[in-house]
Parts: sequence; C-alpha cells; structure tokens
Amino acid sequence: MMYGYYKSGKMNQHAVFDLFYRKNPCDNGFALAAGLEEVVIFLTGLKFEEEDIAYLRSLNLFDEAFLDELKRFRFTGTVYAVEEGTVVFPNIPLMRFEGPIFQLQLVESACLSFINHQTLIATKAARMVQATRGDLFDHTHESVEFGLRRAQNADAATFGSRASYIGGFAGTSNLYAGQNFGIPVVGTQSHSWIQSFPSELEAFRAYASTYPDRTTLLVDTYDTLKSGVPNAIQVARELREQGYELRAIRLDSGDLAWLSKESRRMLDSAGFSNVKILASGDLNEYVVRDLMLQGARIDTWCFGTALITGDDCPALGGVYKLVAEEENGVMTPKIKVSENPEKITNPGYKRAVRLYLEDGMATADLIMLAEEQLDPSEPLTLFHPIHTYKRKTIRNFKMEELLVPILVKGEIVYELPEVEQIRRRAKTQLNSFPHEIKRPINPHAYHVDLSEKLWNLKQRLLKEARASK
Amino acid sequence: MMYGYYKSGKMNQHAVFDLFYRKNPCDNGFALAAGLEEVVIFLTGLKFEEEDIAYLRSLNLFDEAFLDELKRFRFTGTVYAVEEGTVVFPNIPLMRFEGPIFQLQLVESACLSFINHQTLIATKAARMVQATRGDLFDHTHESVEFGLRRAQNADAATFGSRASYIGGFAGTSNLYAGQNFGIPVVGTQSHSWIQSFPSELEAFRAYASTYPDRTTLLVDTYDTLKSGVPNAIQVARELREQGYELRAIRLDSGDLAWLSKESRRMLDSAGFSNVKILASGDLNEYVVRDLMLQGARIDTWCFGTALITGDDCPALGGVYKLVAEEENGVMTPKIKVSENPEKITNPGYKRAVRLYLEDGMATADLIMLAEEQLDPSEPLTLFHPIHTYKRKTIRNFKMEELLVPILVKGEIVYELPEVEQIRRRAKTQLNSFPHEIKRPINPHAYHVDLSEKLWNLKQRLLKEARASK
Repeated sequence: MMYGYYKSGKMNQHAVFDLFYRKNPCDNGFALAAGLEEVVIFLTGLKFEEEDIAYLRSLNLFDEAFLDELKRFRFTGTVYAVEEGTVVFPNIPLMRFEGPIFQLQLVESACLSFINHQTLIATKAARMVQATRGDLFDHTHESVEFGLRRAQNADAATFGSRASYIGGFAGTSNLYAGQNFGIPVVGTQSHSWIQSFPSELEAFRAYASTYPDRTTLLVDTYDTLKSGVPNAIQVARELREQGYELRAIRLDSGDLAWLSKESRRMLDSAGFSNVKILASGDLNEYVVRDLMLQGARIDTWCFGTALITGDDCPALGGVYKLVAEEENGVMTPKIKVSENPEKITNPGYKRAVRLYLEDGMATADLIMLAEEQLDPSEPLTLFHPIHTYKRKTIRNFKMEELLVPILVKGEIVYELPEVEQIRRRAKTQLNSFPHEIKRPINPHAYHVDLSEKLWNLKQRLLKEARASK
Repeated sequence: MMYGYYKSGKMNQHAVFDLFYRKNPCDNGFALAAGLEEVVIFLTGLKFEEEDIAYLRSLNLFDEAFLDELKRFRFTGTVYAVEEGTVVFPNIPLMRFEGPIFQLQLVESACLSFINHQTLIATKAARMVQATRGDLFDHTHESVEFGLRRAQNADAATFGSRASYIGGFAGTSNLYAGQNFGIPVVGTQSHSWIQSFPSELEAFRAYASTYPDRTTLLVDTYDTLKSGVPNAIQVARELREQGYELRAIRLDSGDLAWLSKESRRMLDSAGFSNVKILASGDLNEYVVRDLMLQGARIDTWCFGTALITGDDCPALGGVYKLVAEEENGVMTPKIKVSENPEKITNPGYKRAVRLYLEDGMATADLIMLAEEQLDPSEPLTLFHPIHTYKRKTIRNFKMEELLVPILVKGEIVYELPEVEQIRRRAKTQLNSFPHEIKRPINPHAYHVDLSEKLWNLKQRLLKEARASK
C-alpha cells in the first residue's frame, strides 16, 4: 500500500487514524490500556536499514526512487493516546494518529499488535485480581504471574509480565521481565528440584538453607498431606530455631479447596499460622471464584497459561481505522460503513472525555469532535448512541481528557512513566468505577456516548454513503 | 533453583530432562514439531552480560562466588530433538536434554515457550490446511497468513508466520517474516486504501497500476455485488487491454458462501474465470469446512486471529521433566508420580522410533530405553501402555529414529535446515499418515506405545515410589 500511495502521488497527504476496539475481552466490563511505551519506542526508532532495502529490492516489486524514499523514512506523525493504566471501553480511541498517510499505513499492524497484546493481558490480569476479591471475604489475596513457559514466545512472556503487573499482579517468576521493568520477582522450586534430592525433606532443607528468609516449599511431589506438609512443618521448625520464618507452602495439584483447608489446619496447629499458602495449576478467574466459595484457604494465587495467553479470548480485536483525510487542504471526516451497525466507525478528528460526578466516581465517557467545548458548570444530557431514547442529565461533573499528546510531528512530548507509576494509575482508575462494572461475570455496561454534534455528523455521513451507492 | 543447586554443591551433577506434551492441541490428531531452530540459537548464545549480573546482584539474594559462576556460564549440555516439521504425538519426547542440572534448570522455561509456541501454530496451520481439503473437492485451495495485527506481540507474529509456513501455508502478509525466513509474502489493500480515494473505481485503478501483474482487489468496502465486483471487472478489462490479468478479488465481510458464488458467476460471465477469490474475516477451520459444504467458491483462505493466536487452544502445554539423574556416578531413571495417571512420566534415558509398514505408512511410534535394540526383520508385538490387553503384531517394518543429535556438549552437530526444507519435511511426514488421523474433527488416535522393558521399568519405579510414602 505504501508503494501504491507513492505511485499515486499521495504519500504525503495527511490523514487521521483511530485505534480502538469494539468489544471488551473475556466478557469483562472494561479493559485496561497498556502497550503505549512499546509503540512509542517503535515509532521513534523506525527506519529502513540497508539490509531491509536489499530485501525489498530482491522482491522485484519496487522502483529505486521509492526505495530511496524508504531510506529517508522517519515517522513524523502526531500521536495522542490514553495513558497506560487507564480504564477504557469499546469505541474510545486508545490512540489517534495524524500524519502522512504513507507513514500511518506502515505502522498500523505493529502498533495494533503491541496495544492488542498488552491491553489484553493487563485486562485479563485486572479481571483475575477482581476475581480474587469479594465483599464476603476480609482476607487479602495476592496474585502472581507464572506464565513464561506457556507464553506465545519471548515478547509475549516479557511484555505479558509487564502488562499483568500493570493489571495489579504482585510479581512475576520471569527474571528477565523483572530486570527490564523493575517488577518484583518471585520464585519457588519445581518438582524436579524435589526429585533431584534423595528425599523430600532433604530437598526442602536445601532450599531453606539457600533462602532462609524467603522460602516457599512445593508440597505436592509425593503426597501433600502425608509427606509434603509435615516435612514443611519440620523445616519451618528448624528455620525458627535459626531465627527465620518459613514464608509459604505451594499446592500445585489435587483438590485445592480441601488440601488448602487441611494444610492451613496443620500449619496452624503446629504454630505456623503466619505461613502463607500459594496455589497454582491451571487456575483461571472462574476456578478462583469457586475455590473461594468453597472456603479454600489460599493467600496467593499463581496464574500461568490462562493469564499469559488470555486463554478464553486470546486477542483483543483492536482495529485501526481512517477517520479523516485531507482533501484540497481541508481535513475531511471519513466514515466506514458496514452491514453490521456495530462496525460503523465514528468519523472525524475527535477527543474523548471521562465525566466524574461529585463523589469522584466515573459516570460516563463522551466522544466528541475535537473542536467542541464542554462547560462542566452547565447540565449535560447524554444519550445512548443507538437507543437514543435512553437519556440522562448530569450536573456539576468533572472532566478528564482521555487522549493526551505523545508525539508531535514525530518528536516525543510525553514523559514515559515507570511501570510502577502506571500500576498506581490503574489502581486509582479502577477505584473510580463502581464494583458493578468491575465484577468478572455479567458486569454492568458503562456508558460511552457520542456528543450530539458527532452523532449528527455520523448520521449525515451514513446517509451520504448510502445515497452514493 | 540454580542458586540452590550451587549452594547444595550439586550444580554439576548430570541429569536428563525430556520435553514433551500430553495432549494434542485443538482436539487435533497430531502436532507438527517446530521451534527447534529458535531453541538452538538461544542455547548456543546464552550468557550473562555485565548488566544481567548487576541486576542479579541488586536483588541481594546471591553471593559473589555464584555470580562469578554465572559470568563463566556457557551451555555445555547434549541435546537430541525431533526435527522441525516432524509429525508428533503426546508423550513422544520432542527434545531430550542431558547435562549439569544447574544448566538444564536455567533453560527450561525459554525452551518450553519457543517449542510450545511454534509447535502450536504449526499444528494449527496444518489443521487449517487439512480443513480446506476434502475428498469431495477436486479444487486446489491455498491458505495464507494475515495475523500480524492480532498476534501476541512481535515474536508471536514473526515466529507464528514461520510456523504457519511450515504447517503448509502458502505465504504471509508479514514482510518482516518474509525477510527473516524467506517466506513468500502476499498482500492486498485495506478498506482505508479504498476510502482514501474519491471512488472505489479510482482506488482499484491506482492499485492495479501499482502492481499490474499481481493485483488483488478488496471488493466489500461499499457494496460487494453492486459496486465492488462490477468495478473489479472493469479494472480487469482495463488490465487485459494492457496485457495483464487481474489476479484476484478479496471478500472480507458478509455471507461468504453466497457472495463467493455470486462473484464467481459474475467474473465467469464477464470472461474472468481465471480471477481467483480470496476470503478473509475471522475464519477458522470450522467455518471453512462449513463454507465448503455450502459450495462456496473460494480459492484462497486468509487466516488471521484464529491462526496466529491458536484461538481455541492458545497454549500447547508442553512440559519439561526430570527423567534420569546421576547418583554416585550412575545415571539413574527417575519417575514423577501423580494422582492423575496421565501425568506420570516415562522414566529413563530413552529413544523413540516411528514404525512404517511396507506400504510406507506409519503404523505406530514406540518409546523405549536408549540401550534397547530392535530388529525390523523380527515380528514386533506392540501393546497399549494403559489398556495392555490391546495388542498388535507387525512384521517387515521400517524404523525411523525420531530423536537426532543437535548439540553435543554444547557444540552444534546439526545443520539447521532452511524453512523451505522443513516445510517439505512436514508435507512428506503428513503424507505418510492416513487421512483418518489428519481429519480436523474426531480424528483416529495414533498408537504411541512403550517397549516392554520401559513399561516394566515404569511399573517398578511406580511401585517403589508408592511403597516409600
């Protein structure tokens, strides 16, 4: 397509593309934006090396003048985006790209892959963290990421760790992600560790003497209740004599509800009520909820495959659509029609705001044309973009601008936050939404509305498109 | 764990680990091994850089002598593996690692991630290719990969392209994968291309003049049958006047069965029966089978999300298990017991062979101890490893050694084949299995048996493990 734009003499024609998704993943009530840092690093470093040019030349598709254009290529577009760790919803632009159409077409697929992936995993993580909570329980649960070996290759593992930390996980077993993003690292031992010693007790002792102040013991290699937990209690006693406390035991198979309750009872009656219980083994948000209802005594949930692959919904489905293009020097809104009403795009150069009520809770998001003004001291009537009879009026609201400037004409104007700061933002954001939107099953649908002006523009362009057929 | 092995004075104790999986992905009847090249590059390049040591030091967990060991670290293990493009089944070791336990423990997760990912996608691709075939159809179908934007980050896209080519796909839209692995690249235009011109016809003409000898036109932007196909026919006529032929049209939405039949009819009656029809839009193997039964006239299937994520089964579930360890200088077989009989490992230092009958078709795989000999001129009785009354005797068979040497004491002894050669191997391998094993739905289960000697060893170790509890 780049070559086509070049050959048609319109490579530098300006256009605007929105990146957004149409459906929350995993039947969740929201998504958690992530992946922006990876996009920024990609866009600001993007160029064609000699070997790339040589490969393209070898395809015998392109003329030399075009290859010269590629040699000079730098991304000079202007990019706005929602910050990582922002709670987002269908149709909200996660990113808005403006620049020469030739450039914007090139970056589409990579940007989609990064945002689709990290947003998916951050959302899955936030969803799992929500699942480990419930008003019935006063207990503090923690979730950790153990997915490396099942990740879809190295980037999926590393950026998946990052995204799950943003989503509220407490740590990862992936040291490389720990090193790259400053994420807390956690570890236990494998069954092969236990097997490689003459006995389970010796294996436990060897591990405890390696990490006396942070030992977690895997207790299910031979027999959890007859061998694993008694041996762990023995080692806990020996550690205590040396002035240390055993940190935790880990259950990795069997009936986790029953085993955790029995293990808790055994640990408590031996005087080790401070020893935590970790559970792992193909856990997902549904299994966790069910185990909690059964009264399982699990302190830390270790999620692997289901988290790192997004399991029941392994792609977010984000898209990248042309919403405006320069025509005779004027930026003109564009619409993509479809037989499926859900797939019709919101045209034009837009902004998106989140509206908060006086109690600090988010009440709706509003997508509008960039030039529109909103006065928070005036009452605002919102309406459903499809079922327009559904209306509500809000007063004395506060506004948060969702899209912030990231690159202006290719230059970075945004300070990329540390992952720790992004994680805090995610937490603050989640705290401003009611529980009904965050529950993992049958969440309440949050309002994402269009301004009247945008809605009217959309209807007009739709009519024109259908009339011109 | 590495630090633990170091502290316990057993870091250089030799061990053997098998990498295998327990269940074919997506209810398929087989898997297609892939990912070995990535593993070899990883193992032979593995070292700890200064910055890695600095990070590990900053964790305040390790003593300096251990960090010095890491500075000297090189992988010196011996690795056998099934070659990429080999048809494989549950419990067959895809790789066997032998070396110091300290080293073997380090490489576990990365090797699993590479093999799990590429084997999954190669299998999904082979499964999709099988789905586009059927004895009822004489038609030659082709499958291409369009998954980049939905892949779980960059590596998943690139290595996913590679794996799908191994699995029988004809090409990819991912130029980067094309460049890296010499995979044929294919492309069409997006809806935004069509929208960015004043009319669909002008957009088609611009594309056709860019690539006159390889134009595929996306016909569903406005109205497939009223606008898209008639405009494509117009451009096909104009191309023919210049001595070119339009290559194909692409359908990306709507009822693909009906639209493809109508488009075919329109193209044929305009004299363009040579113009192919591509279909895309959330296709998977089930949709394809159903479209074929409806008589859809589709020549090329473009698979995206469902292929590149492994959709209904996004992780292979490969594991890495200790099967033998040096004890007092003798390599001693190890077993991992489990309440779940499927999860009990096959102990010992093993080989695996594929047995072919005189017609050249594979009849069973046999896992046995490495020192066992097999004489193909003698009758061989095979038995089911769980339901042992199920027996069959084969005669005059041929044997293929499945595990071949890749690294010996850290040195590469295997010539890594080109991806083209791997793809041919996959095709040859698939041709030696009956259709009943390859069909995508309810495939027949292929025999993977244990030799009597291995079976006896397993039973003995199981009894010992249970007695020692």
